[in-house]
Amino acid sequence: MPEATANIGVVGLAVMGSNLARNLASREGNTVAVYNRSRAKTDELLTEHPEAGFVPAFSYDEFAASLTVPRTAVIMVKAGAGTDAVIDELVKVFEPGDIIVDGGNALFTDTIRREKAVRDTGINFVGMGVSGGEEGALLGPSLMPGGSDESWVTLGPILRSIAAVAEGEPCVTHVGHDGAGHFVKMVHNGIEYADMQLIAEAYDLIRRGTGKTPAEIADVFAQWNEGELNSYLIEITAEVLRAQDAATGAPLVDVIVDQAGAKGTGGWTVQTAIDLGVPVSGIAEAVFARSVSSHPEQRAVAANLPGPVDELRVDDAEAFIEDVRLALFASKIVAYSQGFDEIRAGAAQYGWTIDLGAVAKIWRGGCIIRAQFLNRISDAYAEVPDLQVLLTAPYFVDALQRAQDAWRRIVAQAAAAGIPSPAFSSSLAYYDGLRADRLPAALIQGQRDFFGAHTYRRVDREGTFHTLWSGDRSEITAEDTH
Amino acid sequence: MPEATANIGVVGLAVMGSNLARNLASREGNTVAVYNRSRAKTDELLTEHPEAGFVPAFSYDEFAASLTVPRTAVIMVKAGAGTDAVIDELVKVFEPGDIIVDGGNALFTDTIRREKAVRDTGINFVGMGVSGGEEGALLGPSLMPGGSDESWVTLGPILRSIAAVAEGEPCVTHVGHDGAGHFVKMVHNGIEYADMQLIAEAYDLIRRGTGKTPAEIADVFAQWNEGELNSYLIEITAEVLRAQDAATGAPLVDVIVDQAGAKGTGGWTVQTAIDLGVPVSGIAEAVFARSVSSHPEQRAVAANLPGPVDELRVDDAEAFIEDVRLALFASKIVAYSQGFDEIRAGAAQYGWTIDLGAVAKIWRGGCIIRAQFLNRISDAYAEVPDLQVLLTAPYFVDALQRAQDAWRRIVAQAAAAGIPSPAFSSSLAYYDGLRADRLPAALIQGQRDFFGAHTYRRVDREGTFHTLWSGDRSEITAEDTH
Repeated sequence: MPEATANIGVVGLAVMGSNLARNLASREGNTVAVYNRSRAKTDELLTEHPEAGFVPAFSYDEFAASLTVPRTAVIMVKAGAGTDAVIDELVKVFEPGDIIVDGGNALFTDTIRREKAVRDTGINFVGMGVSGGEEGALLGPSLMPGGSDESWVTLGPILRSIAAVAEGEPCVTHVGHDGAGHFVKMVHNGIEYADMQLIAEAYDLIRRGTGKTPAEIADVFAQWNEGELNSYLIEITAEVLRAQDAATGAPLVDVIVDQAGAKGTGGWTVQTAIDLGVPVSGIAEAVFARSVSSHPEQRAVAANLPGPVDELRVDDAEAFIEDVRLALFASKIVAYSQGFDEIRAGAAQYGWTIDLGAVAKIWRGGCIIRAQFLNRISDAYAEVPDLQVLLTAPYFVDALQRAQDAWRRIVAQAAAAGIPSPAFSSSLAYYDGLRADRLPAALIQGQRDFFGAHTYRRVDREGTFHTLWSGDRSEITAEDTH
Repeated sequence: MPEATANIGVVGLAVMGSNLARNLASREGNTVAVYNRSRAKTDELLTEHPEAGFVPAFSYDEFAASLTVPRTAVIMVKAGAGTDAVIDELVKVFEPGDIIVDGGNALFTDTIRREKAVRDTGINFVGMGVSGGEEGALLGPSLMPGGSDESWVTLGPILRSIAAVAEGEPCVTHVGHDGAGHFVKMVHNGIEYADMQLIAEAYDLIRRGTGKTPAEIADVFAQWNEGELNSYLIEITAEVLRAQDAATGAPLVDVIVDQAGAKGTGGWTVQTAIDLGVPVSGIAEAVFARSVSSHPEQRAVAANLPGPVDELRVDDAEAFIEDVRLALFASKIVAYSQGFDEIRAGAAQYGWTIDLGAVAKIWRGGCIIRAQFLNRISDAYAEVPDLQVLLTAPYFVDALQRAQDAWRRIVAQAAAAGIPSPAFSSSLAYYDGLRADRLPAALIQGQRDFFGAHTYRRVDREGTFHTLWSGDRSEITAEDTH
């Protein structure tokens, strides 16, 4: 058996795992034990990165023996049954007080289940969201660990050492207990879906409205990246739009098949929001837009459906592009507001104490939705920690005030010209619904009472009521209904 | 032990169960055994309805003994653990070939699980959607049974005897195996959500755009009910809008709290659609619109958000109302098309053979979404049974052609005037997305390849590709990526 020399270990040495292990090893004070189911990956990693000083293990017993107490291991395997298998093995060789971290993309309810199952052993189980992809894992990810306070004492310094740094602060915080970290990572991905869809709609509108080439639109995005939209996604959009296909000389974006793939976390965000009663319409429309795109057989039969084609030709391209920019910014505010609403509701439902401002801060670096804008979100929660709706914070109200005429013009123009803008229009409809004095939901309650005796409440007094629709249409209090 | 005289039994005698039992007893040839966990409900039913000739049972043994072979029982208890408990008891006293029907609102995956669990006993387990509420149960519901072919031999004649009748045909069909019936009932409810939200938006637009009173708008809906929108929901909307509150003299719809409740099946429809990769944006927006309405604490803080209020005043009320009617019709076509798309995808996923035209037919009577319009859907599937997208059938293409200028005007006007129209605008965006020659999904694929090496396909040749974004930006085939 090896001597216990490593303060942290990594199980699973595919790209994400080996990059995270290298990141850990590169930081002062860390010695990293590594284990992989097949020996070949471990040998390869050691050969390629002698500088890392990895402590290799070829069995779980060796792995445990190589770790100092409290033993701390990060699992980096494909989410699913494989995760459970590794946990089972680690539980056998770890002791009370040790820490098992799942850094995979687990569904938070699985994490809650796993934490509960492990808890009785006295071992700490931590579900941790890791954002930033392979490059983030290597150079500095945004980290969203859940789990116990005890685990955070050991994990905190290690994770702070490897996280991305934004404005001097490491992009990691102890999000909350058990599944809180994976929950927040899920919503991060949902927001990412919405953000990408909004950018795609903005590009499509500019292209169809002004006739500009992708390279010219790349310049627009590059310019936007200098202002309040400054963010990683805007930056890489410019890069993608500027790319030329070497084989054909065409813009790369025109050579790529227009069917967007998905890996499930956007869908989870919507499914979870429905369980929580939180409207995340922007994220849902983004998920659906990808699924519309991915049904070529349906698109083929629908291609000749009646409607305007190429009818939008704006007179003042510059003014139109500024309208699109403002519509994008306003819709983005809605998407983030809906996402934070879901985190708030999730925290209430699962009993987590989540500092929403801290979440905004750790997304400023390392992750896909990193953006200047997140400072405004953390400011908003610093000012009013229990803010009911993010978009009612003064900065956002001001932005929405400035943006909204343009936003409305863009949604109207898209509708008239037949350019699909599901996320733009859905965000606007959400905004107008939220601020409405009266909603026609009252009619829906009337219908439900009519056909299902579901009862309704009255604006002028307490209680629940039912109209005898099949009778004399008098009103009774709900206690009188069966 | 009683003699076996009943050809059908009902377990659970709350309103839905006792109404269904009375419906069964009222039909020639049926003798109905009844059982309830607490004796009082059974006694009450027998006392109140001596004409029904019920055969009461006070234990599961008695209940089974009172049924002729194959024993056939319909469970009408609140969906959930109670259903499992009743199934466990029935399995103990039933024999191979007997039939257990769950007529509750079960989630179809529970039905699949239950059918599988019961199958080994040789007993048939049938999940059946029952639509039409209490009145439907008593007078004629729309019935959506799943389960085995064997069960249908016995169940078919009984269910046909009690179902609603539409244009001479009973509103029941053997939907498909195991969970198919509950799946189709779930989508029925999802469509109902969308239909109600669309009607609510139409009402809101007319009211805010023309200043008409609810009673005047009731006349509009009553008139619409004479045309292609003819349906139960349009009919009762007129009734609800016409209702006056006796206490205040105000329109009832103005007295009802504008927070719409929900019982979960709409949400299930969306959650399931996400798993299936089917965009049901109209249903999702309807679910979300109800949740926006049901957060009064958020609406209170959002009430003063900037935006137009009461700015829509149309010059030609009649023309505007006709625009709204067409927008409603077009959006409704989209909602139904999305719903049938989900049934098609569910059938493919779970191996069900579902006759979509037959589903449309059994919804013509007894259920909440009953409408003339459903004949057009069954026609469409009669003509092309494997129709890829319902809205591409000639009748709907024609309708969408007629409706679309109005549809676009309404979405644009709503956006400009700040009137929330999430379902109208979402349906239009879906329509324009589906028929688009190119979608900006290509940009999303480019972004995903940039930040996550997710690869993309090319329009001009087979394979999957990746651009070396951090390198020299040349393109490699995906086999070369890790």
